Amino acid sequence: MTIHSQTAKVQAPATAAHFADSLSSGDFKAAFRNHAAGVSLITADDGSGPVALTATSVISVSAEPPLLVFSVSAQSSSSATITSSDTVVVHLLEAGQLELAQLGATSGIDRFAQAPEWSRLVTGEPVFHAAPVWIRGRIISRMDAGTSTVIAVHALQSNVSEGGNVPTDADSPEPAPLVYHNRTWHRLGSHSRIPA
Amino acid sequence: MTIHSQTAKVQAPATAAHFADSLSSGDFKAAFRNHAAGVSLITADDGSGPVALTATSVISVSAEPPLLVFSVSAQSSSSATITSSDTVVVHLLEAGQLELAQLGATSGIDRFAQAPEWSRLVTGEPVFHAAPVWIRGRIISRMDAGTSTVIAVHALQSNVSEGGNVPTDADSPEPAPLVYHNRTWHRLGSHSRIPA
Repeated sequence: MTIHSQTAKVQAPATAAHFADSLSSGDFKAAFRNHAAGVSLITADDGSGPVALTATSVISVSAEPPLLVFSVSAQSSSSATITSSDTVVVHLLEAGQLELAQLGATSGIDRFAQAPEWSRLVTGEPVFHAAPVWIRGRIISRMDAGTSTVIAVHALQSNVSEGGNVPTDADSPEPAPLVYHNRTWHRLGSHSRIPA
Repeated sequence: MTIHSQTAKVQAPATAAHFADSLSSGDFKAAFRNHAAGVSLITADDGSGPVALTATSVISVSAEPPLLVFSVSAQSSSSATITSSDTVVVHLLEAGQLELAQLGATSGIDRFAQAPEWSRLVTGEPVFHAAPVWIRGRIISRMDAGTSTVIAVHALQSNVSEGGNVPTDADSPEPAPLVYHNRTWHRLGSHSRIPA
C-alpha cells in the first residue's frame, strides 16, 4: 500500500442509540460560532485547471515529519480538484491579503481570471505572489468525514517572502495575521494582545 | 471493524527522493509562526484520572454528521489519556477564560488540584464551568501523524451557557474569542475587526 493513496472512511457510529445521541447540525454550528481561526488560501491543479479555496481549517500537526491537516467541504467547487491532486500549496495569510481570502471564498467567479498576480511553481502548482508565506506539500492521506474530506499533507517546501512574518503593523512588533470569526475578518496586532 | 477503534497510520513517503524533498522542522515551524488559531481546552478521563489540555488545533469539519478534528502531541502528558478515551469534552474558550487556557498549557502541575471550578458530567467527563461553550463527543477515528495523533470526534452534546456566545466586550456587538499567535494571547472584538 502506498501511503499516498491511503483513504480512511469516518462515519457516525451505526447503532440507533448513537444516532439518537448525535448533536443536531444547528446546535453544532451554534457552538462553533464562538471559534476563531487563522485564514489560509489553498491552491492546486490536478490537471483540470487551477483552483483556489479559502480555508479556516489548516492546522500544524507535526514538525518531524512536517505534517499539516485541513478539511474541504464537498460543497466547494474546488473540493474535487484539491482532493484528487497529488500536491497543494497552502498560503498562510496576513491581514494585508484580505483580497486573496475573499477571492477564495467567493462563489461563481473564475478565481484566476481576475485574480491578483499568480504564477505556477516549476512543479506546476498555482501560487499567489502576494501571500507572505506559503507551504507546498504532498497529500499523504484523505479521510472522508461526513460531507467533508480531511486531508493530511507532508510539507516539502516553504517560502517566507520579504515582508512575510515581519511587522506590518506600525504599532506592533509582530506580523498581523488574518483571523476569521463569525463571518467577520479580524487583524491581530498589539491592539488585540492580552497583556501577560 | 468498529469505526470507534479505527486507526490509520500516516508517515512521510518512504523513498529517498521524498525524504530529500521534505521541509525541515525548523522551516516548517517558521512558516506556521504566522498562523493564528482559536483556543480550546480538551478534557477526558479514560479511567486513569482526569486530564486537561489546551489545544489550538480544533477544527469543525462537518455539520451533518457533526464532526470535529484536533491533534495532540505525544509530548503532552495528557496525550495518552485523551487518545485512549472513548469520549472527550472540547471547551471553546473566550478571552475571559485565559486562566483555563493557561492551566491546560502549563506543564508539571496537577491541572485539577488547583483548578477553577470543575465537575463531572453524568457520563463521567470533566467539565470546567467557566467555559461558555463546550461540546461532548465520541472519538470515532485516530490517525498517527508523525509525533502527533489526529483525532476525529462525533459531537453528541453541547452546552452554550448564559454569557457564552454573547457580547463580553462593551465596545463590541460580538463575543470575544481567545486567539493564540506566536506565543501571545489575543482577544477579538470590534478593536480587531477589519471594516467590510
